[in-house]
Amino acid sequence: MKRSERLVDFTNYLLNNPNQLTSLTFFSNRYNAAKSSISEDLLIIKKIFEESEVGIITTYAGVSGGVVFTPGISNDFSLVLAKELLDELLKDNRILPGGYIYLSDLLGDPRVLKNIGKIIAHEFRDSNIDAIMTIATKGVPIAQSVAEILGVPFVIARRDPKITEGATVSVNYMSGSSARVEKMTLSKRSLKSGSNVLLVDDFMKGGGTFDGMRSLVSEFDCQLAGIAVLAEGVFNGDRQVEDYKSILKVEKLDIQSGEIQVSLGNIYNNK
Amino acid sequence: MKRSERLVDFTNYLLNNPNQLTSLTFFSNRYNAAKSSISEDLLIIKKIFEESEVGIITTYAGVSGGVVFTPGISNDFSLVLAKELLDELLKDNRILPGGYIYLSDLLGDPRVLKNIGKIIAHEFRDSNIDAIMTIATKGVPIAQSVAEILGVPFVIARRDPKITEGATVSVNYMSGSSARVEKMTLSKRSLKSGSNVLLVDDFMKGGGTFDGMRSLVSEFDCQLAGIAVLAEGVFNGDRQVEDYKSILKVEKLDIQSGEIQVSLGNIYNNK
Repeated sequence: MKRSERLVDFTNYLLNNPNQLTSLTFFSNRYNAAKSSISEDLLIIKKIFEESEVGIITTYAGVSGGVVFTPGISNDFSLVLAKELLDELLKDNRILPGGYIYLSDLLGDPRVLKNIGKIIAHEFRDSNIDAIMTIATKGVPIAQSVAEILGVPFVIARRDPKITEGATVSVNYMSGSSARVEKMTLSKRSLKSGSNVLLVDDFMKGGGTFDGMRSLVSEFDCQLAGIAVLAEGVFNGDRQVEDYKSILKVEKLDIQSGEIQVSLGNIYNNK
Repeated sequence: MKRSERLVDFTNYLLNNPNQLTSLTFFSNRYNAAKSSISEDLLIIKKIFEESEVGIITTYAGVSGGVVFTPGISNDFSLVLAKELLDELLKDNRILPGGYIYLSDLLGDPRVLKNIGKIIAHEFRDSNIDAIMTIATKGVPIAQSVAEILGVPFVIARRDPKITEGATVSVNYMSGSSARVEKMTLSKRSLKSGSNVLLVDDFMKGGGTFDGMRSLVSEFDCQLAGIAVLAEGVFNGDRQVEDYKSILKVEKLDIQSGEIQVSLGNIYNNK
């Protein structure tokens, strides 16, 4: 195979196998090419992936060595994507009764989801995430998007356990916005103990849902790797979780006038 | 930019913009290269994308012309992916009370989801799909995966409408397996009238859920483009939908003995 052809296949292969170590021997056999040629290919791909904000190519030497593609963007590009999301949020009238914001269109748009995933995956790139956890339903597309980029599984907690889950583990939590005790469950076989778990959701007010997921994480003998949310809403009082990362922050929301003020979230503090 | 570098960026660009017409002028400007060079690049990418089952590159001549990348696989590769899924389904004990099958692990694995998406997108490649519809929660990851490949939005119907949806449209439907009348709702602003809608879900028994989604499709003045399911279960009697496509089919399921027989679904009939 010629270099030009090889580069097309090589690029496609790496994009489809993020965060996986693949030996140079594998590519050498795949393309029937010398390892030196494969290394030269990788230098070209590395350069373009970095310039185009696709991600990082890391090569490891030695017998157990190989190449890993880590999808990634720069802080600057993360900011560009967040500003695009902010513009989307200010379009149309998104205010719903109760101080919620209509997000379903964004959460059903694969391009938007990919950008949300890139921002969150970038923010937690050094956290050795093993799994993503979210709660049904709105958080699911975000979880899937982050999981795809990081190359890890995602699990879905539910408020209404279904018969198709098998045995489950449940925890109670305080829903901050309604000050009620609620329950969430997770299928027992869905999460391995010892996993380093990132919690994601679309919207946070009091943080009660995240607090519930945090309880699930410890019930499963896992560690909390972090908390990420697309948008934090207006909330008076103490949140039930403090150490979260938000892409967007709703500063003000007036249901009567339809006025809404949104700024960038705390991911972009001091950046 | 050199051809070798251009090909890496070009490949990445096309993979990230499926089913979109992009003019050759765009690429000519992006790479500061003659259109003849861009055309030569496209021939190389086209060859490799076809050989590696990535998809089809189509170029359109003329002023409004350009290039479209359509992700796609061959019938043979679809079969390979389906057999891999079948093997997964036979692993471990997946039988749950009520004749359901535990699928949550597969539906939380980005690689498995991508393959399910490829199979369904391939099956409906000529159906001019405008949107994907599913019902919360298990169908969501499949909908997202198909939507990402086809480059269209997806919408989520719900049995328990939430306050974060805004105005909704509801329909009643007969749940075939429990012979009860149930209700499902869809956010009014989530689906454009006139859309050509593909319904997807993870598991089908009597088909009542699909029948409900079909009612939603007509309530939104949309057209039904097709019905796709990961696995059809054992069901005695007439299903409420007939013209569906399944990747897998559960032939027999014995809760007592834990015995399960799964075959390929009707997508692979006569193939």
